Amino acid sequence: MGGFTPMAPKCEPVIMSRSEAPHDDMTGNLLDRLLAGLPAEAVLTDPDVTGSYAHDMAGFCPAGNPAVVVLPRTAEEVQHVMRTATALRVPVVPQGARTGLSGGANATEGCIVLSLTRMDRIVEINPVDRIAVVEPGVVNAALSRAVGEHGLYYPPDPSSWETCTIGGNIGTASGGLCCVKYGVTAEYVLGLDVVLADGRLMSTGRRTAKGVAGYDLTRLFVGSEGSLGVVVRAILALKPRPPRQLALAAEFPSGAAACDAVCRIMAGGHVPSLLELMDRTTVGAVNELTRMGLPETTEALLLAAFDTPDPAADLAAVGALCEAAGATQVVPAEDVAESELLLQARRSALVALDAVKGTTMIDDVCVPRSRLGEMLEGVERIAEKHGLTIGVVAHAGDGNTHPTVCFDAADPDERRRARESFDEIMGLGLELGGTITGEHGVGVLKKEWLAREIGPVGVEMQRAVKAAFDPLGILNPGKLF
Amino acid sequence: MGGFTPMAPKCEPVIMSRSEAPHDDMTGNLLDRLLAGLPAEAVLTDPDVTGSYAHDMAGFCPAGNPAVVVLPRTAEEVQHVMRTATALRVPVVPQGARTGLSGGANATEGCIVLSLTRMDRIVEINPVDRIAVVEPGVVNAALSRAVGEHGLYYPPDPSSWETCTIGGNIGTASGGLCCVKYGVTAEYVLGLDVVLADGRLMSTGRRTAKGVAGYDLTRLFVGSEGSLGVVVRAILALKPRPPRQLALAAEFPSGAAACDAVCRIMAGGHVPSLLELMDRTTVGAVNELTRMGLPETTEALLLAAFDTPDPAADLAAVGALCEAAGATQVVPAEDVAESELLLQARRSALVALDAVKGTTMIDDVCVPRSRLGEMLEGVERIAEKHGLTIGVVAHAGDGNTHPTVCFDAADPDERRRARESFDEIMGLGLELGGTITGEHGVGVLKKEWLAREIGPVGVEMQRAVKAAFDPLGILNPGKLF
Repeated sequence: MGGFTPMAPKCEPVIMSRSEAPHDDMTGNLLDRLLAGLPAEAVLTDPDVTGSYAHDMAGFCPAGNPAVVVLPRTAEEVQHVMRTATALRVPVVPQGARTGLSGGANATEGCIVLSLTRMDRIVEINPVDRIAVVEPGVVNAALSRAVGEHGLYYPPDPSSWETCTIGGNIGTASGGLCCVKYGVTAEYVLGLDVVLADGRLMSTGRRTAKGVAGYDLTRLFVGSEGSLGVVVRAILALKPRPPRQLALAAEFPSGAAACDAVCRIMAGGHVPSLLELMDRTTVGAVNELTRMGLPETTEALLLAAFDTPDPAADLAAVGALCEAAGATQVVPAEDVAESELLLQARRSALVALDAVKGTTMIDDVCVPRSRLGEMLEGVERIAEKHGLTIGVVAHAGDGNTHPTVCFDAADPDERRRARESFDEIMGLGLELGGTITGEHGVGVLKKEWLAREIGPVGVEMQRAVKAAFDPLGILNPGKLF
Repeated sequence: MGGFTPMAPKCEPVIMSRSEAPHDDMTGNLLDRLLAGLPAEAVLTDPDVTGSYAHDMAGFCPAGNPAVVVLPRTAEEVQHVMRTATALRVPVVPQGARTGLSGGANATEGCIVLSLTRMDRIVEINPVDRIAVVEPGVVNAALSRAVGEHGLYYPPDPSSWETCTIGGNIGTASGGLCCVKYGVTAEYVLGLDVVLADGRLMSTGRRTAKGVAGYDLTRLFVGSEGSLGVVVRAILALKPRPPRQLALAAEFPSGAAACDAVCRIMAGGHVPSLLELMDRTTVGAVNELTRMGLPETTEALLLAAFDTPDPAADLAAVGALCEAAGATQVVPAEDVAESELLLQARRSALVALDAVKGTTMIDDVCVPRSRLGEMLEGVERIAEKHGLTIGVVAHAGDGNTHPTVCFDAADPDERRRARESFDEIMGLGLELGGTITGEHGVGVLKKEWLAREIGPVGVEMQRAVKAAFDPLGILNPGKLF
């Protein structure tokens, strides 16, 4: 994913390494204070290095130059960073692997970038309690593999799962392909240790299956994009590992027919472990990139999978519903290996779309699944109006679409049209009763749109919550609102 | 459940019907203002009537006399009530069916009781989107039956499901028997319309399967016991209706052996739709009440059920694990009817324990399920120390125990010992890494204990959240903190 160069001009970084260059008093004071509680190797000031921490994978998002990047290894070190930041009123931008797609981890000018990537210990895996206790820098795939060895399953699987961190997943409330059956990150976070803006440590939630003692602050931190506190430990719920899933692919003569199939499947009470849609543009791009030989004649390709005790029976039932909705071809995988091949097509979709014009903007609009057909149709209209290629991949079972605008970043007019169509897609989503973001978050990219979605009272109360946790406004300022 | 008379002396109510008696200026002003935006029949002042709204089903919880009870039918009427309360600085206690067990709905002296029971419309049931839109006064069982007609399932099933309301369930973040597989109320609340303390209406969340636009205020309201705002509409997630469950009963020679079986079942990757435990005391009480003929020789009875495609196979596997853990007898139900009989035993447990000494206090301590055996053992020690009968029923699969203290309310010393043992049980739960409340909430009953569980920083931040939503402190004051 990604490939888009942020639009903000890349200024010369303000700060250089302490040993190499002088710096102003303010920064000197900041560095001295930080180094009083952090080892020297955990404090980066070389501008070539700190510059690489300036932004995540979102396009159209300004990013400033960090004053310093810190890489703590313990909660105590994070507390020291936050105490320092509070004392000096310096903004702090918490970061995971910077795979985000909304600029939520982008640096602000002169900030402390607080990278949690070195806090990467899996503290505990408990098969009886079905929990894992982890530090925020643990990579999603590393956790998934580790719990798999105990017969357990950590479902949330964002596309970047091989590199993204659990802390980042919690900050963004990430989703993935599994959500249609297993839900999103939020549903797996039981309790948190959080360092507050002033450096105090707070524990929220529980390590039990149930618990309702007080307000649910755990859930408040999930999806808060590092703007309320810094997660330094998480207690995660796990599921028993299900059987390997078996998939089918169904080819449709129109997007509307594919969406009709989605509605029939969900209204029919089926619980697929995956239900994904790719439109013709996406299928073409995947063929171009991978030579997979997907059917080029298709207008929409639906992938469904089941990890049930008898997936073949479930696929047969769903295949019949696809045919009833007008599918011209239904191809169930013979085995797990063939299923994986089908899913590879879906997994390479965004990279393939990126290759179309060199740059993409990936939208993330979720609509009630009963409105999915209208969404697809509307996106097509928007693409036509702006003379752009917009491929749609969607977690169709959730109504969560990723209309992906392909454009040439070197062409100013095309950039403008790309941004306009990106915004119109969000407007369409709201009209259909949806949300501007199903799983990527608000960050910098969708700030104005958040206000449109939740309205003035909503914004006011969200700001009041922000002020309650971060009265000085030093935690990831300029994000969300 | 219940049967316990609140300990607060029942004072003479302050307010009488407007037509019958004079009242002081303050109250007169309040009534005049309320009646300006509510029909007369929605404003109750007869002290015999308002007195019946003073408390929920919790014991040991003080309750004041309401100045007035209002029964709005629309969000606008609720807004009028809150605007009036804000203008006059009068406390408001939101109420559902008052089946709560922590005093969370108890009136404070001179308050407006805001009963949502007349807002009982099911606005929408959508099988494609798998959602229901409801008003807060809808009874849990009414919703369950209504969605069942569409092949859908609303899982949360507190014991009081035939009478409790969805609004109350949301306020308390209720659980039930289904949670081991389907989770608690919180997991089914997608979006809310909330009237804030000052009377403004705010919409939170979404009607889509996924959505991460801004802080998760929806979840913040769930379990907030009416202290942050008044829920006037909820968008609830639904599941497809599963097959009817099939159950087994397993008899154990000790609580420890039964808890070992629970651990083996959960570590073995099984996903029962129900996994309940009753100790010897409870089994005896149920036999006494119902003449069901449960095995009196048992030290612990485990009930497990599956609603899977092949429940008999799952029951066979779980039965084998029970035997490996030392079960002396494993009896799988032959059919759904026989399963229902077994579950009836569990459902009548609290009523049966109530009959032992005339009064009970039902605790609600949830521990990591790996510590369940220690919890049972500890409760036995506490019962012995205080010379009391304490029966334990537990949502064993969740580690959520309901140690039920049986006592004679007319005996002051026994009351004291009952309260002491109730508190010691919470202390034990915290020692074992658990929580003071798995599903009943904090209310008045467990205020001091909330502070012990979440610590001073936690309390401070929870209070900050409260202040952000309710700066005047008029919403359900004296609860939680």
